[in-house]
Amino acid sequence: MSIYQERCAEAQERMALEGLDYLFIVPSSDMLYLVGYEGHITERLTLFVLPVQGESKMVLPAFEARRMQSLATFFSLETWEETDDPYKALVKVLGTDAMRSIRVGVSDQQWATFLLGFQETLPKARFVQGSRVTGPLRIAKRPEEIELLRAANRFNDAAFTEFITMPMAGMTERQLYDRLAGLMKKHGQDSVAFANPYSGPNSSLPHHIPGDRVVQEGDVVLFDFGGRYKGYYSDTSRTLAVGRTPEEFEKVYNVVRGAQQAASDIKKPGVPIGDVDIAARRYITEAGYGPHFTHRVGHGLGLDEHEPPYLTSDNHEPLKVGMTFSVEPGVYLPCRWGVRIEDTVLVSGMGGERLSECTREIQIVS
Amino acid sequence: MSIYQERCAEAQERMALEGLDYLFIVPSSDMLYLVGYEGHITERLTLFVLPVQGESKMVLPAFEARRMQSLATFFSLETWEETDDPYKALVKVLGTDAMRSIRVGVSDQQWATFLLGFQETLPKARFVQGSRVTGPLRIAKRPEEIELLRAANRFNDAAFTEFITMPMAGMTERQLYDRLAGLMKKHGQDSVAFANPYSGPNSSLPHHIPGDRVVQEGDVVLFDFGGRYKGYYSDTSRTLAVGRTPEEFEKVYNVVRGAQQAASDIKKPGVPIGDVDIAARRYITEAGYGPHFTHRVGHGLGLDEHEPPYLTSDNHEPLKVGMTFSVEPGVYLPCRWGVRIEDTVLVSGMGGERLSECTREIQIVS
Repeated sequence: MSIYQERCAEAQERMALEGLDYLFIVPSSDMLYLVGYEGHITERLTLFVLPVQGESKMVLPAFEARRMQSLATFFSLETWEETDDPYKALVKVLGTDAMRSIRVGVSDQQWATFLLGFQETLPKARFVQGSRVTGPLRIAKRPEEIELLRAANRFNDAAFTEFITMPMAGMTERQLYDRLAGLMKKHGQDSVAFANPYSGPNSSLPHHIPGDRVVQEGDVVLFDFGGRYKGYYSDTSRTLAVGRTPEEFEKVYNVVRGAQQAASDIKKPGVPIGDVDIAARRYITEAGYGPHFTHRVGHGLGLDEHEPPYLTSDNHEPLKVGMTFSVEPGVYLPCRWGVRIEDTVLVSGMGGERLSECTREIQIVS
Repeated sequence: MSIYQERCAEAQERMALEGLDYLFIVPSSDMLYLVGYEGHITERLTLFVLPVQGESKMVLPAFEARRMQSLATFFSLETWEETDDPYKALVKVLGTDAMRSIRVGVSDQQWATFLLGFQETLPKARFVQGSRVTGPLRIAKRPEEIELLRAANRFNDAAFTEFITMPMAGMTERQLYDRLAGLMKKHGQDSVAFANPYSGPNSSLPHHIPGDRVVQEGDVVLFDFGGRYKGYYSDTSRTLAVGRTPEEFEKVYNVVRGAQQAASDIKKPGVPIGDVDIAARRYITEAGYGPHFTHRVGHGLGLDEHEPPYLTSDNHEPLKVGMTFSVEPGVYLPCRWGVRIEDTVLVSGMGGERLSECTREIQIVS
């Protein structure tokens, strides 16, 4: 039995618990998890149909069937031609269930146009988030997944360690993006999801899009970078100064670093997830910067860049062994600059383990 | 009045025709078109709410509000904090309409989880595809859009023209991907959407994911590459031979080239869109390769890689001035190799104009 068959069997068990008759999965991280197929996210319907019992099917464009055949060891194919209505292929797969009041979980990230198509095609069916099934399966990573997350984070470390040996003043944000992205690929990432530099006042915006601003002496530059390796994401942030540190920088930097440490330290299985956020928020608030820490402390990551668990203070679910998430407190001084330090953290039986290890000491580059 | 206000006003006119009370737009090509905001596609709700009459609003995470302010000249902001329920912010924006039987168009590419959230929050509302409104607006490109599509395609041409001067034998598909992608950025693309080489037998699969296969003498290599420039996509395919051409290659190549020419030639405003597909298919069928042309001849492109119009033989809508789409016939000989030639074509008052112009002569590289 392949890992994909095992995962589908677990999904079926959970579907039974949730009272679902079917799971409808389009190309997405859920499909990669359950079937090992990446696929294109397009207007052409590709749909893995998993019933609570019995054989699963893959509905897909006929001209892509040959590419799917090596994966289709435990499901059969139902193809549609370019001028066919793909929903008719779905009805054929469902048989008499197409007219019944079935309950269906759909991939959370599925395009709305497909959900509207399902609702029209299956007027008696009721649809709910498929993450009720896939979320609990995916939230605690398995050993084979942890190895890939470790590797993806190690590649980030190696890239950034080399990156900060090079001068930055005079370069645009876009140029820095390209240089960091190139190093991430050089050190092993299959692809680069983001390698964003936020320079000068742009670093005071937690989500900025890199542009043509030229980095200059006295700038703070915040880097937020993540790659993808065999499907799994990494996510790291580091903040440095160019030439010299501006006033108040060292103080703020050490507050953020201390908060990041405090949040990483408390992670033991069983503790509420929200405690991770609270630990960082308390540390920053006690140092007087509470209003400038404007976002949650982190998010899960795995086959998605952002996935459960979400680390908000009101998340009362317990931390579990195998969870992996970012711990990324930040302090953003409006129109001046900001500091964020972020590592991917794994919850092990012993507590938290950071998967990224590039330096957290203050770096001043030229 | 900015172009975004004009586009929103046109959307409101069309909403009235379609009987829609609201349009709900998440970060997507539709949001970029209507508001000029790219945004993150994530689990955090960012939603542009356009009523059929009156002022529009943007619901968004509070910590991203400062980044939005420069764009928010004709709409106001409704923010939610990290521990808030974002759907409550939506209800606040809708006021008493939240309890009425409103009709709402949602972005086609919106995640299903948001549509399920809207359906739960607004139990009396009815939801339909937002492309009923944005599709007709976006399908014929405006002059400012055509200039960007022209530029994006020119960058592809320049990249490929330089690319084919370099030797390829001995390189893996991934290495070729990186080299072509680098040249696309060098020649002007903001980012690379895909720069896929399909080598040897992989070229017989219309959609292949590049891997570690090493290119060797005697290989056919099919390249399908597209970049993004100021939001707009390019899309080009070329097929070449390494060292020497295999048996039957020249014949098939010339059939595909002739079909691509025939399909490009017939485009005059008013003719059914399906005729473009039929012209290519007839040409290939008459040459005896009909069963090996397994996909539609093309798809619209603009702010999306794939968007209406879709060029299938049964599309009876008329060609309109300003439409831009790929014309990409292919012949795929199973387990051997395939040939595809693709250009982006603009429908002008005079007929079709190809926006990509890199050579369509047979190329044999070393």
